[in-house]
Amino acid sequence: MPSPSSPSDFLRKALAMAVRNVRTGQGGPFAALVVRDGDIVGRGTNVVTTRNDPTAHAEITAIRRACSAIEDFELTGCTLYATCEPCPMCLGAAYWARLDRLYYAATREDAAAAGFDDHHIYEELSKPPEQRRLPMTQHLSDEAERPFEAWRNYEERVEY
Amino acid sequence: MPSPSSPSDFLRKALAMAVRNVRTGQGGPFAALVVRDGDIVGRGTNVVTTRNDPTAHAEITAIRRACSAIEDFELTGCTLYATCEPCPMCLGAAYWARLDRLYYAATREDAAAAGFDDHHIYEELSKPPEQRRLPMTQHLSDEAERPFEAWRNYEERVEY
Repeated sequence: MPSPSSPSDFLRKALAMAVRNVRTGQGGPFAALVVRDGDIVGRGTNVVTTRNDPTAHAEITAIRRACSAIEDFELTGCTLYATCEPCPMCLGAAYWARLDRLYYAATREDAAAAGFDDHHIYEELSKPPEQRRLPMTQHLSDEAERPFEAWRNYEERVEY
Repeated sequence: MPSPSSPSDFLRKALAMAVRNVRTGQGGPFAALVVRDGDIVGRGTNVVTTRNDPTAHAEITAIRRACSAIEDFELTGCTLYATCEPCPMCLGAAYWARLDRLYYAATREDAAAAGFDDHHIYEELSKPPEQRRLPMTQHLSDEAERPFEAWRNYEERVEY
């Protein structure tokens, strides 16, 4: 069987994974693939409720598995295919992973219509901290630099 | 030894963990604690480079461990203590975990001054997708609803 090769092929494959993920009771209706040079190097579906892990969205799972497979903490040169526009957590992960680009099928509005909170979280993140529904308070600003000082002084640090 | 009990006590403990994380070569200068009813139920430090996992920020690690420990995918009733204002990925995770509140020591500007990219990622997320430096393209919008249809039709679905 030839491996899929166009963005639509990879997205269609991810959509089928997402449908199967729901029907087999593994979790929410989302799946993602990380692809490098036409090869799938990481696959993920949403397994939040079955793994007791609120971070186990499809994209995070696919990114973690791809990094594990290629033994690197960056995915430069890779593309993420996601069945839905990523939530802020997953989009943040895509930036930290230094992915080259991202294709998605459903929008955040589609996700909201299906009962998923992505859109509200985007709105929350764009607000000043004091206006968010998650109360955030700064303390100990005078001691907060200590870890960064340790970092600057640690000559073997691995930047990321 | 009495367990710490005030926000400053927990943050001071996290700051010490972050300094130790750097000096022992485990990863970046960040640590986090999840606390419920005065007890630490999850601890995490940044282990991105040593675990080959770009999502292994302190907060994500602490949230995953707390959920694993209490065997739930939500942390309602819990507080997150982080040595630094969380990046968008971690703040997104805090929302998905339904944490009650969040205390932090350093700001995203402090992190940026130490070479960490949080601030830029906040700026990226607030832009329309087509203006971001990570190219994002929608495809297959006409097939994108299939996983959501499967979800609506799956009677045993566990919402999150």
